[in-house]
Amino acid sequence: MSQKGILIVISGFSGAGKGTLMKKLVAEYDNYALSISMTTRQPREGEVNGREYFFVTKEEFEERIAEDGMIEYAGYCGNYYGTPRAYVEQQLENGKDVILEIEIQGAHKVKEKYPDALLMFVMPPSAQELYRRLKGRGTETEEVILKRMTRAVEESEGIDTYDYIVVNDTLEDCIGQINAIVDAAHNTPDNNEEFIDTIKKELKELLKGDLK
Amino acid sequence: MSQKGILIVISGFSGAGKGTLMKKLVAEYDNYALSISMTTRQPREGEVNGREYFFVTKEEFEERIAEDGMIEYAGYCGNYYGTPRAYVEQQLENGKDVILEIEIQGAHKVKEKYPDALLMFVMPPSAQELYRRLKGRGTETEEVILKRMTRAVEESEGIDTYDYIVVNDTLEDCIGQINAIVDAAHNTPDNNEEFIDTIKKELKELLKGDLK
Repeated sequence: MSQKGILIVISGFSGAGKGTLMKKLVAEYDNYALSISMTTRQPREGEVNGREYFFVTKEEFEERIAEDGMIEYAGYCGNYYGTPRAYVEQQLENGKDVILEIEIQGAHKVKEKYPDALLMFVMPPSAQELYRRLKGRGTETEEVILKRMTRAVEESEGIDTYDYIVVNDTLEDCIGQINAIVDAAHNTPDNNEEFIDTIKKELKELLKGDLK
Repeated sequence: MSQKGILIVISGFSGAGKGTLMKKLVAEYDNYALSISMTTRQPREGEVNGREYFFVTKEEFEERIAEDGMIEYAGYCGNYYGTPRAYVEQQLENGKDVILEIEIQGAHKVKEKYPDALLMFVMPPSAQELYRRLKGRGTETEEVILKRMTRAVEESEGIDTYDYIVVNDTLEDCIGQINAIVDAAHNTPDNNEEFIDTIKKELKELLKGDLK
């Protein structure tokens, strides 16, 4: 059965381990492709166009918006960030399960345009563990950590609007959960129209021939 | 996370291999429990009360119906067949994923009462293979096989009303698909209310204490 890919939106608290998860998913499983966001902000040192982001001018970004070329976008600190439609749709057409890492407002916009998209929220096993991970990075000031934890409280109010939660306790187990959810989605009748239609047709043909 | 179980309805064409599938699921995975149907028909030789069916009188069955004790039931050849509610709900409460093997009308009745139930339709890899399996049993007359294939054509019109299809090509692979679907269902926010509420509460408490 050749199928179109599944669109997957992954959100979660800062410190829940989304980045590591996605790197591992894409590295170990052929079926996934990671969507690359577009932004008008300046590249930071070491960032490569087309790897971390597609870096474009404000005019280019607004042109994309005008031609309905963005699945979702938002402004943040005077810059645009968004998901270009063309790459995502091409990968889905090729049968890849495409992962977007975006926050809750963006996730809802994607769901409006793609009702079959799977919205997953990555959770830490506990709030204490989230705090421990944020502190453990050793790069964040106490103020930044406080801000992230405050943001986590806000974001936690939206968890119920997701289709699934996945708990990132051990990485392997969490990846198992994500794979199961994606596998399940490949088994809906909507995603198997061609196969179902073929069986229906074959059954009727067999009966017409009186099961010869 | 201790969770309630998932209610699973399995339907599929005669010859798709439902019986073997379910025996294997229950034998190899602790999380499943098989619901036992109730009937007013006479036990056949070798059938044991509480194993193949709960065998009851017409009066007992109708009493159950009157007290809303059946999840679904139907009449067939002058006898009642149905799913007693008590056993199913008790197993779900114990955290077991309960499997009901019923046909499409019953499946829809279950979904009405339990909107979170997972409706799965077991498909053969092809119509030819279904025919081959029905013939391969060697116990059925050509007439019975013709009847079953005709019934399959009718049933195939309802596949789209199921949540999922699973393809029984190899048994192992098919069981993998069922397990993935059930695993996924355990990851919905609805089935993790307690866990989500705990994290929310913990996050707020951590912040109140200024992350001490």
